[in-house]
Amino acid sequence: MAAAAVIGVDWGTSNARFLLADRDGGLLEARDGPGVAQLASPDAIEAACFDALAAWPRLPVVMAGMVGSNIGWRPAPYVPAPAAVADIAASAVRFVARGVEFHLLPGVETRRGDGTPDLMRGEETQIFGVMTPDDTLVCLPGTHVKWAIVAGGRITGFHTAMTGELLDLMARGSILLNPRRAASAEVDPAFLDAVAAIRTSALGLESMLFGVRSRQIGGMLDPALADGYLAGLCIGADVRSALLLHPVASRVLLVGTPALTGLYAAALSAFGVKSDTIDGRDAALAGLVRIWRATAR
Amino acid sequence: MAAAAVIGVDWGTSNARFLLADRDGGLLEARDGPGVAQLASPDAIEAACFDALAAWPRLPVVMAGMVGSNIGWRPAPYVPAPAAVADIAASAVRFVARGVEFHLLPGVETRRGDGTPDLMRGEETQIFGVMTPDDTLVCLPGTHVKWAIVAGGRITGFHTAMTGELLDLMARGSILLNPRRAASAEVDPAFLDAVAAIRTSALGLESMLFGVRSRQIGGMLDPALADGYLAGLCIGADVRSALLLHPVASRVLLVGTPALTGLYAAALSAFGVKSDTIDGRDAALAGLVRIWRATAR
Repeated sequence: MAAAAVIGVDWGTSNARFLLADRDGGLLEARDGPGVAQLASPDAIEAACFDALAAWPRLPVVMAGMVGSNIGWRPAPYVPAPAAVADIAASAVRFVARGVEFHLLPGVETRRGDGTPDLMRGEETQIFGVMTPDDTLVCLPGTHVKWAIVAGGRITGFHTAMTGELLDLMARGSILLNPRRAASAEVDPAFLDAVAAIRTSALGLESMLFGVRSRQIGGMLDPALADGYLAGLCIGADVRSALLLHPVASRVLLVGTPALTGLYAAALSAFGVKSDTIDGRDAALAGLVRIWRATAR
Repeated sequence: MAAAAVIGVDWGTSNARFLLADRDGGLLEARDGPGVAQLASPDAIEAACFDALAAWPRLPVVMAGMVGSNIGWRPAPYVPAPAAVADIAASAVRFVARGVEFHLLPGVETRRGDGTPDLMRGEETQIFGVMTPDDTLVCLPGTHVKWAIVAGGRITGFHTAMTGELLDLMARGSILLNPRRAASAEVDPAFLDAVAAIRTSALGLESMLFGVRSRQIGGMLDPALADGYLAGLCIGADVRSALLLHPVASRVLLVGTPALTGLYAAALSAFGVKSDTIDGRDAALAGLVRIWRATAR
């Protein structure tokens, strides 16, 4: 077995993943931990970190994600897009705690025409963990979906869609599902019907959602499959917006969990767009080690 | 004072309004009551109805709204669009309870190209309470916003936008507002900034919402005004969809509460569309009496 060389931490809002790796990014061991939103203070985050690291050798730790936000351990900046690996590495916040060397990676910031910023923190590390051909549209599905253009080894621009959070709130809180329940969906006919409804309409999601209810009342949608129709509307609208913004994309790289990337792949396919899929955890580890090596240079 | 001739009831999901009127629709007295969602059974609805009517003379009662739905007192059908006053009146469900004559008005149903139905129940009564010039686009803002075309005295088609429910869920449940709070908004610069952002973008609402957070982080939006920006995005997206569906509309008739119609009037104005406003309660009473008179014929 290769020698452990670095510890990578992908530390988001709702969970953390600690990864013991060799110098080439080979995974030796992994541990899960609480997300920063479940930890009340920087001190609590530090304690959770050292709990997770206790059994492992004392090695440099490279961390990405919300752990560097204003609800995290310490603030790390946002690097403006276009941003390359070297830019991320150069803006890493280095500090020592309890004798351990930490590298806290920055996020990336971009701006729309009207000056509205958009932000990512953690996704840049996953993106840089994937070897991308030029001018790739990368989609990272989740609570806050990121759609990023990667060109010349740089993240040149991106936008965030709140699809996951919106879907969950509508599933648990609205009148659309009875009983109200967590959003969960498979690629079934109801999901695909909803994607097709979005694809053939120019109406916004807010003007399509009522179809989840009216199709049940009209006997066109089995209430047991209504969560799939709801997911298809939300993900279909998200995909439609992204393809409108990036009309030249003929192929999308999906990075995430198999369940979510499967739904996005099916929705993209309904829009005539092919996709490739990479597991988000693999991408995070590869990105952490790649940026750490650039940091160390 | 003119003699009381009829009792109109506008009975929705979350509240009821009992209206004692003369034969010409003049309001003599009004009482509020609980919505059907707060009443557990048809028997509870009947009891609440007779509580509200106890002090008034025994007169025919004409009722519109969710009281005729599957969570109401008794089921009344949906009349297919195009629907005129005579169609609503002809499909009213007449019954007698405790010696009182009730007329329960039907809703209206339309269908999209893919067969998905859309439904209204109560709004048709408000629409028929307003004298509309031909080819009027009528907007009834609320939890479930209705946009209807009225032509030749008929409701020829309509669609529902879930703007109010979506806005409320995002305000109370998402990460966009801190502290999370009920959706409330005035026509302030933050609201208008958001409408302008929607107007100048083709992206869907799901891909614009994150701006509520990122503009606060970037110092472009006062957190105290963030609910206004959120409302502007949701209402702006709703208006954009409606004007896309009805591109010839140069003037919109708004029917509802002053607070909501004011927001929609401001959003429409930002899209270059003028509007007139009628109070929803006045429209409901006028519609109930007009349809009742057609029923009695």
